Amino acid sequence: MSRSEFDIIYQHLAASAAAFSTEGVALGIGDDAAQIRVTDSEKGGLINVSMDVLVGDVHFPADAAPELIANRALAVNLSDLAAMGAKPLGFTLGLTLPDGDEQWLEKFSAGLAPLAIKHQCPLIGGDLSRGPLNIAIQVHGSTASEGLRRGAAQIGDAILVSGALGDGVAALASFDLPTHLDKVLNFATDDLGDEDRQYLEQAFYAPEPRVELGQACLGLASACIDLSDGLLADLGHICKASSVGAAIELDRLPVSAALKKMLEDDEASLAALLGGDDYELCLTVPPSQVSAIETAAVSLGIEVTRIGVIEKQDGLRCLNASGEEIAVPATAYEHFGSA
Amino acid sequence: MSRSEFDIIYQHLAASAAAFSTEGVALGIGDDAAQIRVTDSEKGGLINVSMDVLVGDVHFPADAAPELIANRALAVNLSDLAAMGAKPLGFTLGLTLPDGDEQWLEKFSAGLAPLAIKHQCPLIGGDLSRGPLNIAIQVHGSTASEGLRRGAAQIGDAILVSGALGDGVAALASFDLPTHLDKVLNFATDDLGDEDRQYLEQAFYAPEPRVELGQACLGLASACIDLSDGLLADLGHICKASSVGAAIELDRLPVSAALKKMLEDDEASLAALLGGDDYELCLTVPPSQVSAIETAAVSLGIEVTRIGVIEKQDGLRCLNASGEEIAVPATAYEHFGSA
Repeated sequence: MSRSEFDIIYQHLAASAAAFSTEGVALGIGDDAAQIRVTDSEKGGLINVSMDVLVGDVHFPADAAPELIANRALAVNLSDLAAMGAKPLGFTLGLTLPDGDEQWLEKFSAGLAPLAIKHQCPLIGGDLSRGPLNIAIQVHGSTASEGLRRGAAQIGDAILVSGALGDGVAALASFDLPTHLDKVLNFATDDLGDEDRQYLEQAFYAPEPRVELGQACLGLASACIDLSDGLLADLGHICKASSVGAAIELDRLPVSAALKKMLEDDEASLAALLGGDDYELCLTVPPSQVSAIETAAVSLGIEVTRIGVIEKQDGLRCLNASGEEIAVPATAYEHFGSA
Repeated sequence: MSRSEFDIIYQHLAASAAAFSTEGVALGIGDDAAQIRVTDSEKGGLINVSMDVLVGDVHFPADAAPELIANRALAVNLSDLAAMGAKPLGFTLGLTLPDGDEQWLEKFSAGLAPLAIKHQCPLIGGDLSRGPLNIAIQVHGSTASEGLRRGAAQIGDAILVSGALGDGVAALASFDLPTHLDKVLNFATDDLGDEDRQYLEQAFYAPEPRVELGQACLGLASACIDLSDGLLADLGHICKASSVGAAIELDRLPVSAALKKMLEDDEASLAALLGGDDYELCLTVPPSQVSAIETAAVSLGIEVTRIGVIEKQDGLRCLNASGEEIAVPATAYEHFGSA
């Protein structure tokens, strides 16, 4: 692919991002490598790197609007930086596409720009090739120290989540697409209004990476993960890495008004527990720090909800409103074997 | 794709790389991001990042041996770090493949391991997906300061190249595959012996990234690039970035014995000038530093050849043995329009 096609993306982003700080970027596109530096620490600072690949007709319809694909691809990557508490520095893009359709590239660039600008995360390098549609994005972020890892959750920590859960899977159902929970849940779309549908489409294609919240939780939360595989699976990753267990109060799981119109209450909780692609943060927090995080979240306009507690006993226990442990339908787990 | 498939690659590499230094890797695979640090500098150190994507049936036959594909994919990326003078820290892998063939993954891993170990560049993260074969690799390397950029070549600098040039395109011809120079050159393969063919196959699938040489040239060379598009094109990048021109002495271009068996002398020089995929370094060097670089190269067992000089006049001039400027066949340039 010609240099000029890469330039289309770069120039579009650069032109619309005159306000990009270059504090963390010592050298951008145009040499054998880009160069980045740790910005927020004199000593012990780290560069956090995370790569996610989205494949056409696997992760999204290949004929979806390029703006939507681009936005989602960058958002899911920034969500990983959010989960580390890292400050974004820049991203690289490995884009493979069938032909050099300039209009497609311009729309794709336009879909990257808003998030890139909002989070001061410029394009710093990459590679363009011909071939079946494939989008590899790597994000780079700076932390002064270890950041928010998975392995330090402590017994007695409160479990908090941001935003509403279950909208990722509910969105698929609202598009009349199959979901991995169709054997367990009966999504009804009859009561959805236009506003609900727009809300769900936004949740799916333009999830809001919780970058500022992650940074605000540095020094407060003991562990953090972003919710891509679903709360049960992702909280499981924290528990495994920290050698602890967890109890989740199902009726505390935050769900949207749109989701409530699609499912009965009990089912809505299961969607929140088992649905994926929510890109909210799940945090474990020492009790003494919960109010500090709640205050930080309020100032960012983000809802956080206390949904359970870290405990000594291995495994994840799901409790109903009466505190009784309930079994999660086994069929709901099939997804995780091949996730 | 399941975690366990990613683990196949990771464990294979980890198992065969017990000697990996983790100096530059603060956190490897298993969290939302990997974390790297600048190793060789207290202040002003930079992380160099470069991403190259190889697409099945575009950059290589999709049914090529997985070991060869893997080796080449990592080698071309390490070559970019070499051209910056950077010390490798680790790489990320975004691998998309049609099915979860465990044998394929094991062979692919086996193809990554030798270079990863040799250059102390462990796998630190990535993403695996189903879909048409696509390999995105990003390498990360550390420099104490700016490293070897393209923009500081000075008038009067000597131009040096490592190794032999033209073997990349000669290899394609030896495989009886078409090359972008077929309109200009008449490759003859009749005189090639088994040893020559093996040499060319090795040059194509297992180019030796000049990582140590790049680091040895820090503070000595004024500019550097790795030769992926061909000497004429890549030296052109240095000249453009440095606002200078260059004169190349065609009869000084280093070519292999195998290439000499395939082409007349004049044609061999053109193959060296215009062929791509050589992954040698092209350096510009103040005259006072040439012997220091030659000494460093000898100690590394790498041949370097002085092939020309940086000059004020814009553009690249190609000179024959008598010092006369000769025109490079225009058809040979077609390639660069779509490179």
